[in-house]
Amino acid sequence: PSLGPVFGIKGGAAGGGYSQVLPMDAINLHFTGDIHALTAAHNLLAAALDNHLHQGNDAEVDARRVEWPRALDVNDRALRETVVGLGGTTGGVPREDEYVITAASELMAVLGLASDLGDLKDRIARIVLAVDADGEPVTPDDLGVTGAAAALLRDAFRPNLVQTVEGVPAFVHGGPFANIAHGTNTLVADRVGGALADYLVTEAGFGADLGAEKFGNIVAREGVVPDVAVVVATVRGAKRHGLEMWPTDFDALGSPDPDAVRAGVDNVEKHVSIAESFGVPTVAAINVFADDAEAELAALEAELADRGVPVARSTAHRDGGAGATELAELVRERAGTGSFEPLYDADAPIREKIETVAREVYGAAGVEYVDGAADDVERVERWGYGDLPVCLSKTPYSLSDDAALAGVPEGWTLTVREVTPSAGAGFVVAKTAD
Amino acid sequence: PSLGPVFGIKGGAAGGGYSQVLPMDAINLHFTGDIHALTAAHNLLAAALDNHLHQGNDAEVDARRVEWPRALDVNDRALRETVVGLGGTTGGVPREDEYVITAASELMAVLGLASDLGDLKDRIARIVLAVDADGEPVTPDDLGVTGAAAALLRDAFRPNLVQTVEGVPAFVHGGPFANIAHGTNTLVADRVGGALADYLVTEAGFGADLGAEKFGNIVAREGVVPDVAVVVATVRGAKRHGLEMWPTDFDALGSPDPDAVRAGVDNVEKHVSIAESFGVPTVAAINVFADDAEAELAALEAELADRGVPVARSTAHRDGGAGATELAELVRERAGTGSFEPLYDADAPIREKIETVAREVYGAAGVEYVDGAADDVERVERWGYGDLPVCLSKTPYSLSDDAALAGVPEGWTLTVREVTPSAGAGFVVAKTAD
Amino acid sequence: PSLGPVFGIKGGAAGGGYSQVLPMDAINLHFTGDIHALTAAHNLLAAALDNHLHQGNDAEVDARRVEWPRALDVNDRALRETVVGLGGTTGGVPREDEYVITAASELMAVLGLASDLGDLKDRIARIVLAVDADGEPVTPDDLGVTGAAAALLRDAFRPNLVQTVEGVPAFVHGGPFANIAHGTNTLVADRVGGALADYLVTEAGFGADLGAEKFGNIVAREGVVPDVAVVVATVRGAKRHGLEMWPTDFDALGSPDPDAVRAGVDNVEKHVSIAESFGVPTVAAINVFADDAEAELAALEAELADRGVPVARSTAHRDGGAGATELAELVRERAGTGSFEPLYDADAPIREKIETVAREVYGAAGVEYVDGAADDVERVERWGYGDLPVCLSKTPYSLSDDAALAGVPEGWTLTVREVTPSAGAGFVVAKTAD
Amino acid sequence: PSLGPVFGIKGGAAGGGYSQVLPMDAINLHFTGDIHALTAAHNLLAAALDNHLHQGNDAEVDARRVEWPRALDVNDRALRETVVGLGGTTGGVPREDEYVITAASELMAVLGLASDLGDLKDRIARIVLAVDADGEPVTPDDLGVTGAAAALLRDAFRPNLVQTVEGVPAFVHGGPFANIAHGTNTLVADRVGGALADYLVTEAGFGADLGAEKFGNIVAREGVVPDVAVVVATVRGAKRHGLEMWPTDFDALGSPDPDAVRAGVDNVEKHVSIAESFGVPTVAAINVFADDAEAELAALEAELADRGVPVARSTAHRDGGAGATELAELVRERAGTGSFEPLYDADAPIREKIETVAREVYGAAGVEYVDGAADDVERVERWGYGDLPVCLSKTPYSLSDDAALAGVPEGWTLTVREVTPSAGAGFVVAKTAD
Repeated sequence: PSLGPVFGIKGGAAGGGYSQVLPMDAINLHFTGDIHALTAAHNLLAAALDNHLHQGNDAEVDARRVEWPRALDVNDRALRETVVGLGGTTGGVPREDEYVITAASELMAVLGLASDLGDLKDRIARIVLAVDADGEPVTPDDLGVTGAAAALLRDAFRPNLVQTVEGVPAFVHGGPFANIAHGTNTLVADRVGGALADYLVTEAGFGADLGAEKFGNIVAREGVVPDVAVVVATVRGAKRHGLEMWPTDFDALGSPDPDAVRAGVDNVEKHVSIAESFGVPTVAAINVFADDAEAELAALEAELADRGVPVARSTAHRDGGAGATELAELVRERAGTGSFEPLYDADAPIREKIETVAREVYGAAGVEYVDGAADDVERVERWGYGDLPVCLSKTPYSLSDDAALAGVPEGWTLTVREVTPSAGAGFVVAKTAD
Repeated sequence: PSLGPVFGIKGGAAGGGYSQVLPMDAINLHFTGDIHALTAAHNLLAAALDNHLHQGNDAEVDARRVEWPRALDVNDRALRETVVGLGGTTGGVPREDEYVITAASELMAVLGLASDLGDLKDRIARIVLAVDADGEPVTPDDLGVTGAAAALLRDAFRPNLVQTVEGVPAFVHGGPFANIAHGTNTLVADRVGGALADYLVTEAGFGADLGAEKFGNIVAREGVVPDVAVVVATVRGAKRHGLEMWPTDFDALGSPDPDAVRAGVDNVEKHVSIAESFGVPTVAAINVFADDAEAELAALEAELADRGVPVARSTAHRDGGAGATELAELVRERAGTGSFEPLYDADAPIREKIETVAREVYGAAGVEYVDGAADDVERVERWGYGDLPVCLSKTPYSLSDDAALAGVPEGWTLTVREVTPSAGAGFVVAKTAD
Repeated sequence: PSLGPVFGIKGGAAGGGYSQVLPMDAINLHFTGDIHALTAAHNLLAAALDNHLHQGNDAEVDARRVEWPRALDVNDRALRETVVGLGGTTGGVPREDEYVITAASELMAVLGLASDLGDLKDRIARIVLAVDADGEPVTPDDLGVTGAAAALLRDAFRPNLVQTVEGVPAFVHGGPFANIAHGTNTLVADRVGGALADYLVTEAGFGADLGAEKFGNIVAREGVVPDVAVVVATVRGAKRHGLEMWPTDFDALGSPDPDAVRAGVDNVEKHVSIAESFGVPTVAAINVFADDAEAELAALEAELADRGVPVARSTAHRDGGAGATELAELVRERAGTGSFEPLYDADAPIREKIETVAREVYGAAGVEYVDGAADDVERVERWGYGDLPVCLSKTPYSLSDDAALAGVPEGWTLTVREVTPSAGAGFVVAKTAD
Repeated sequence: PSLGPVFGIKGGAAGGGYSQVLPMDAINLHFTGDIHALTAAHNLLAAALDNHLHQGNDAEVDARRVEWPRALDVNDRALRETVVGLGGTTGGVPREDEYVITAASELMAVLGLASDLGDLKDRIARIVLAVDADGEPVTPDDLGVTGAAAALLRDAFRPNLVQTVEGVPAFVHGGPFANIAHGTNTLVADRVGGALADYLVTEAGFGADLGAEKFGNIVAREGVVPDVAVVVATVRGAKRHGLEMWPTDFDALGSPDPDAVRAGVDNVEKHVSIAESFGVPTVAAINVFADDAEAELAALEAELADRGVPVARSTAHRDGGAGATELAELVRERAGTGSFEPLYDADAPIREKIETVAREVYGAAGVEYVDGAADDVERVERWGYGDLPVCLSKTPYSLSDDAALAGVPEGWTLTVREVTPSAGAGFVVAKTAD
């Protein structure tokens, strides 16, 4: 539920065919107004900061080190880099500013991970908005604006219940990015859902390297532990990896090539093993598209089965729930047969946590810190955020940090170029490669 | 329903005492999300314009003459003057930009005056966003973005029905400023209200010089014609004028001074006569405050009655509907006894229309155009907007354009310093004095 | 000697015909480098200020109230309003900045009025560069940069001796504007010239309302007192005033019209009387142009003589020194027959000094302060600059502050819109009208 | 002759002891005004470009791709990144701008390499100021401003003759950087000097990897061919390399350590061999400092001699010419015994020329292009500048592009991150590493 993709070229995010949720038009536009409330709360914090600079700046905020951008739920390249505070003494203090699309606001991640309104407020209170003259963080609490921002999120914090075309209840709540944030539905929606039904299905953005990893190391640590994982595979995805194709040539992917599909299963299998490395039993679902060749589907299914991966096809897009029955049975069968554990201890040093994800999840040979990222780590730990889990921003196109590397890349080094605290969300973001 | 005053020092806008509307907290925060939809639509137009500049600029928009600011529903001085489009070739085209609070967006006026969704779209289509290299206006239609902006306003266009603490139905819909815009409830809400009840009470922002004048010359022209007008007077307001006090000394206003109140009735009477000049029978309501001295209330009431003005006290704040019974009877008695006419013909030249308002409503001796306002008039007429009614932005503190002039100023000259088309709203804005 | 006019449409400033100074090409380009030294010194002060802001800002400079622009000796509209200090923490502190052409730098006025190198340094030391958080001025002395700036002006302070085509020695030194500054040759050049010859001729920029007034009230107070004044009149100038022509139609001025010339003598006579009001005997010189009609020249000469003004024609442009013999004799005759006095006491309040110039020199009926100019006066006096003479910036096209008013305007009010200290130069600048 | 180092922490550039040139104060301040003329000419080009943007932009200059900064001869971090052209329609076109210190202007390199005034003009004419909408270069010739800029450099183009304290004539003319430019005295001064004396000694900035390489591949190609080269070595320089010290610890360098000096001779020898690779006979001069230990001097001298390098001590700083007699004899002896050849053919592809310098001069194992540098090369060749010699900007602290690598680094890769044409100077600049 963000207007960015709707008015861009990506389109909406309400699913499709018989697996879509309704009312699609509302969900794709303003919906319940959550995104607007986030925009308002985000910009209230920004306005409070600039007003503080203007009114004597008691907190000694360094105007050149404001980390909190402004936010709008629109694709607007002209706002990426701006100068604000112009117009003389009545127009605030001049400084360089940036904008992010609202989904990228730390408040979105805060909303997604807060356990209740009190926790929401606590998390907002500790967001790092800027750095002061002594190099220390400045927070909404320092500016006395925590309550106002939380008040604006009171209703947005409530889960939104919709339904699929078949009447299955579904929560659509929150939309944090799966790179600089954790990329899942809100924790509170998951909890309500879990309490109301025998099974709750929740999605983790992108592949297992990003989605499952962040779910396991960040979200599950907050209390929503998975009983089973489903890795979704497609013929085209496997084929792209099998052909080591980059950038993706969608036309070329159209010609059936079962051998290429088979060659790409290494990549699918790696995703399955990532999920399993958390102690979670995992099955593979083949998401069937209308123009997939049966020979390719068969190749994908057989190759996975040969490697011992439980696998089922899903035709939910075409057939609704009936198309996912086999998958559901497989899921029910495996659910609860494992024992979940995060991959690392949150108390470990930041570099150690990043190294664990790099090696054990991505398959990197090592980690390199460039452009001041090593200083970043030192500062984040000095500020007291060293015991937060890490959230790595990495391309979803490759298991490595280089989109051009297909399959299961080995012997490469993960490049970390910036490390910043999302102290409200409760994790430390590490931006990798480009 | 704007967050600006709520998080500023003004407070909310849901009324008070027994005359407030509920649910106050919702109305004062996000309410039905109309303001957020307006913010989104406004900024979508801005983003489309900047994107057009970036993508080759086929419309030859002059980046230095973009009239369309960005909008946020927050008080944020640092955004008043900015530079956007920085960051090299991928960050858009550098230009100076401004922000307005969403209520000041022309889209708010458009929403308030549109008769249906089709008309809403037509009005958006003709908004003047910028000026091109030939000095001609550039509109949303030129950019192909009319439909997208209208889609975002689809739900916001529906009137919002709430109720008073006594259960009286009330529409709270739209919030255009009463200076650069017309300052009333939406036309569509008034129409729905009028169709559902015997009497519809609607408010026109500020005094009769601004509220009644704009209602008569702009809103009523769209089809909602008043049968009777109520001028609201207060002891304090009359007293301030009687004492020729500026700036207002609220403490000094506290001491009872019936003579001063009486001296201030000139001003009240002028407001009544403004409303009557449209052919609308008018009554005066004395809005009673808890700490008004009876001697002052009596002085105000008697002086108005002496001058032949129908008058009644209202204690609706304290007593709810029961406190306004006498006023209501007076209103019922006068309603429909007149014959409404706008003060000028919309086809008249812009300067003539401004002159009519200046002389007949404000009591000015003449009009002076400074800082290029005369050129503005010429351009606006050349662009084909000469037949729109005029909307004067003037201080509400005086009948003149000088806040310091109390009572009924005479012999002064109205200074017009900028004239711009609100082509979507359907009027020409004239900014006066400072 | 400024590159601005040379590369613009005005051309150089080395005189013409037989009254030009040589070598013209050098004088019009880099000459002795004085203007470059001023540019370097000016920008050194600016860099020191920005560096101070960057290095912790001990002086608590308000970055929004920096009064010191940057300077370049080039016409460059793109630099009029800029934002500097961008690029993050290493790029200084972001702020709005302006540029002036070097001749408009206060350092140019400082160079022009300093009596020796020690005085030059003292004057630089007290320039007001910016305002601090307490509203107090910040000077080069506060930043410890006085000596460095003075060192850069050491050679530029030495007068430049050139010669006319006839070998007459002439000093070309300094070039302060005659509106925001005093508009004359340097004091040190005048002193050297006066010591080396029996007669020193010096020029005061624009008419007697600007040139003679500033020379009398500002320059002469520093010790170079005039013995006699020459007001230069032209047929075309008188005719323009006689025809009350505005804007000037140069073609129309071409047709001979002795009556119009005669009608314009009011204006010339007023200039003569301004010079005489300082106690200085004054003669009028008619600067003869090649295409002046004899009838017009005669009319001008006769009308002036009729009014008792000593007058002589000068054909120095065509004839060199021989063409100015009659004028020279007239000058010699009158020189020293008066007794110079400034028009006001420097200790008088600023408003009184401005009023004196407005009434006694310009012939205004009064003075009006707008846009905060009254606050400016208060602040300038509070800062201790109340005892400096005033330097009024006014149009040279009229004796009034409205270029369109020809002849000797009466009954008008001088509008003062900004008052700032040129504390180094030693005067208070009052900007008038537009 | 640049004010930057004088008012910074580096100090002047007039030599020291008995080998300095006089008058030092003039040379270090304005000198003959050459640097000011360059500043004026540089900013005239910038103003012409911005004026062109403002006046309709017939050349379709892309305001986001202006390559020509503004220039000032002052250290001013606040000007590194700015936004100019603000202030509405009269203030030019808003765009991001940068400043360089005047010595870094391409005009400085142009002045240094032009053979006569005609050539100076031709070179100015082809400078790449900006890129147009079609991606083609925009030059001074396109703007019609070549002649004006050249006129401002007319006098600056003349060599400046000064003398040492012993009366030896010396030219001080031009000051191009030795990284983004070629780093030598002007060609015209060298020619005049060569014509007037038996021997002309000229300096090439930094070590042989930068100075000799650029002299050989850029300057000598213009006609000033060296007969012999002198590599200047110092005890401290050799010791730093011998100790593999980075960053330099000046205190630690103070303690005598002949072994470390000896170990550092690899680096000195490499510089000698770079000069010799051009076919130029080369001798090493040991520049003796007052506090060098004799044991270290002896070690350095012996080690060089052992390796067959002709070597002599110079005490010119302490003793003037007498201190350099032995060196001079060695130079005379070797002069003219070789045969000069540039290292590459100017017609070779840009990448090949860079590779030649990287491998044969720096000792790199290869070259890597990052951040769009490969696209840069393609564009520069498409624009027709592929046959210019290359000018590599590299750290002078190491033979490699990593300042931390001492001695003679091997097995490293040169990183090229930007390639731009200095079309007026006549070379293609490649910026390497950081």
